[in-house]
Amino acid sequence: MPIVSQKGKAMPESPIRKLVPFAEKAAKEGKRIYHLNIGQPDIKTPIEAMEAVKNHSLDVLAYSHSAGFESFRKKLAGYYAKHDITITSDDILVTTGGSEALIFTMGSITDPGDEIIVPEPFYANYYSFSTQSTVTVVPVISKLETGFALPAIEEFEKLITKKTKAILICNPGNPTGYLYSKHEIQQLAKLAIKYDLFLISDEVYREFVYDDIEHYSVLQEKELDEHAIVVDSVSKRYSMCGARIGCIVSKNKSVMETAMKFAQARLSPPTFAQIASEAALEAPESYYQETVSKYKNRRDTLVAGLREIPGVKVAEPMGAFYCIAELPIDNADHFAQWLLDKFELNKETVMLAPASGFYSSPNEGLNQVRIAYVLNRRDLKKAIEILRVALEKYNS
Amino acid sequence: MPIVSQKGKAMPESPIRKLVPFAEKAAKEGKRIYHLNIGQPDIKTPIEAMEAVKNHSLDVLAYSHSAGFESFRKKLAGYYAKHDITITSDDILVTTGGSEALIFTMGSITDPGDEIIVPEPFYANYYSFSTQSTVTVVPVISKLETGFALPAIEEFEKLITKKTKAILICNPGNPTGYLYSKHEIQQLAKLAIKYDLFLISDEVYREFVYDDIEHYSVLQEKELDEHAIVVDSVSKRYSMCGARIGCIVSKNKSVMETAMKFAQARLSPPTFAQIASEAALEAPESYYQETVSKYKNRRDTLVAGLREIPGVKVAEPMGAFYCIAELPIDNADHFAQWLLDKFELNKETVMLAPASGFYSSPNEGLNQVRIAYVLNRRDLKKAIEILRVALEKYNS
Ligand SMILES: Cc1ncc(COP(=O)(O)O)c(C=O)c1O
Ligand SMILES: Cc1ncc(COP(=O)(O)O)c(C=O)c1O
Repeated sequence: MPIVSQKGKAMPESPIRKLVPFAEKAAKEGKRIYHLNIGQPDIKTPIEAMEAVKNHSLDVLAYSHSAGFESFRKKLAGYYAKHDITITSDDILVTTGGSEALIFTMGSITDPGDEIIVPEPFYANYYSFSTQSTVTVVPVISKLETGFALPAIEEFEKLITKKTKAILICNPGNPTGYLYSKHEIQQLAKLAIKYDLFLISDEVYREFVYDDIEHYSVLQEKELDEHAIVVDSVSKRYSMCGARIGCIVSKNKSVMETAMKFAQARLSPPTFAQIASEAALEAPESYYQETVSKYKNRRDTLVAGLREIPGVKVAEPMGAFYCIAELPIDNADHFAQWLLDKFELNKETVMLAPASGFYSSPNEGLNQVRIAYVLNRRDLKKAIEILRVALEKYNS
Repeated sequence: MPIVSQKGKAMPESPIRKLVPFAEKAAKEGKRIYHLNIGQPDIKTPIEAMEAVKNHSLDVLAYSHSAGFESFRKKLAGYYAKHDITITSDDILVTTGGSEALIFTMGSITDPGDEIIVPEPFYANYYSFSTQSTVTVVPVISKLETGFALPAIEEFEKLITKKTKAILICNPGNPTGYLYSKHEIQQLAKLAIKYDLFLISDEVYREFVYDDIEHYSVLQEKELDEHAIVVDSVSKRYSMCGARIGCIVSKNKSVMETAMKFAQARLSPPTFAQIASEAALEAPESYYQETVSKYKNRRDTLVAGLREIPGVKVAEPMGAFYCIAELPIDNADHFAQWLLDKFELNKETVMLAPASGFYSSPNEGLNQVRIAYVLNRRDLKKAIEILRVALEKYNS
């Protein structure tokens, strides 16, 4: 029997996936599960996007341009301009989700055996995509105690080798909720220039920033034009995860030309999803404002609630819609499974994402979980109450 | 300035792309161009698919299951049953186009440096996808003289090394239009079993078979269950290229589990496109029949027309909607450019795909072009007439 590749074997399975059978069993037993484990927003997609698809008048669903509709890319350039990012539609390549933007970026800048430095904890699929490209993720640890702020630049420098091709950050961060300051971005920019590295910034949560802090993009650093690559997506911005539209934005022409070769090979991004995404740009300012204020309230509810549970530590997230919480337990994988399998409070329980999946260093984050605040406040409060009672019971 | 990857540099640019600026110039000058160069059908997408999308009632465009809607996969299994292919929905993984099915398949079974044997000429993007996976395509040449039939099995055997992981065929073939016989498939099956290789069959043109010959799938070979991987797509079947939906079908559980890890990393295939693709399966039998009879007429028109041009040789295609024609010229790249740049007949010209892009062996197919018969018969006749006059002029 022919066998699968080493790379295929090395592709990680998410720790959340291991919980799925337990969640299915719990659901079958009639337990209601509050899903704090996934980044699937419950917010409505802009009506503009949904209507545009309903009103399509296509006869033949043809391939689009490999870089995406030109009209869409032009409007996207306008969107970035509002964020003080000065680019043209030529600096944008539309991809099938931020996921494909990450895959194309890694493919364009790395060869097998190359290294990418990533502050840890990080979005678990960075590890999958680098495994897919047979590239090594080199983690630099950030700590709950500092709210997951940027590790000291010396820590990055220690890890730079001849094989280092890029630094990859997520801003604001999944799973940390940390928002890098302008000063932190500028420190990274200097480092990237000094060692001639790419600085990839995953900004899919750009709009989800609370407390009147401003998001500062790597694309706002003029010096960084040849180094900066932004990965973006409509998934979270417009609650359009199922569209599968994202983009790569960079002023580095060789990067864009190379990414375009990957884009041409897969022919085009999805057409209906581009129609929806282009229309979503017409959503009024109020759409963003209402969404952000909803998430801010949820964050406040969540953080206040968690802080009341004895032994729980949480770094207050400044952006995105996740936070990492440290629990008074030893093994979050086990606890998350126990919650589904053995626990209930009035026929209800919660599903958490064990943080181990967000670390590539062994034995890091074992007592941490990621909590996504994508539920309404009432449900969030209930979920926190369930977690409080569960921790008490688990530890007794 | 940081530089792109070796792999990125090695990613091929399609020879068609080099023609695009000339096509744009010609269009600007007011020339009408008959596009014989692309595989974009002009056939209408089934109304069932288009209406399903218009009638969607989603509020939140959420991620779907990474393997695709279960309802869709179940109906797909029913579709395959009609083609005498006995599989279950678990043997199907929905992908973002046949393109992603090819990328996942290569990723699941090859490591950098591995080899895949492919009859040549082949779909140009096989080369791109293997470059992306840093895998080597080893071509085994098939000839116009034999209508691009399967090369002798000894020719494959000569090329098998320790690094060979798979044989990849396209059936029916783009760019050749060749349809492998049951006997040919069985020969390949024996070979795959003898050397413990995967046999990947790209069957995206399954429905496009003329002259009452039956398509024989690698999935119909019982012995081959652990070896056979089918790549499929709705792009051509339902003229839904812009949907970006395809699938991997295999009974090899480790392959499917591995491909699933790639699928989970990219989260999900596009939702609207899955709605459309699931609905397309409700298209009546007459949709397929009408489509096939249209293409059969076009093929007959094209082949008859080409054979009347002095010095042109063409292998009659039995399936798909392409043929390879040998022209009485030395350099098809140059001729194709000249057609756009220097030639016109009553303000009209044709765009051809030079066949060099479909060969990885150097100096093969230099006097060949691929012609896609995706135009209506009247336009096709005009295009052939233009080609006839152009060849006369070019050679005088
Ligand atoms: C940090 C981050 N980057 C990228 C993605 C990829 O999202 P998509 O492919 O839906 O755009 C996600 C999705 O959760 C994410 O959290
Ligand atoms: C032979 C073959 N395989 C695969 C594909 C990929 O098609 P898609 O990604 O649109 O399914 C094509 C497209 O032209 C093709 O001709």
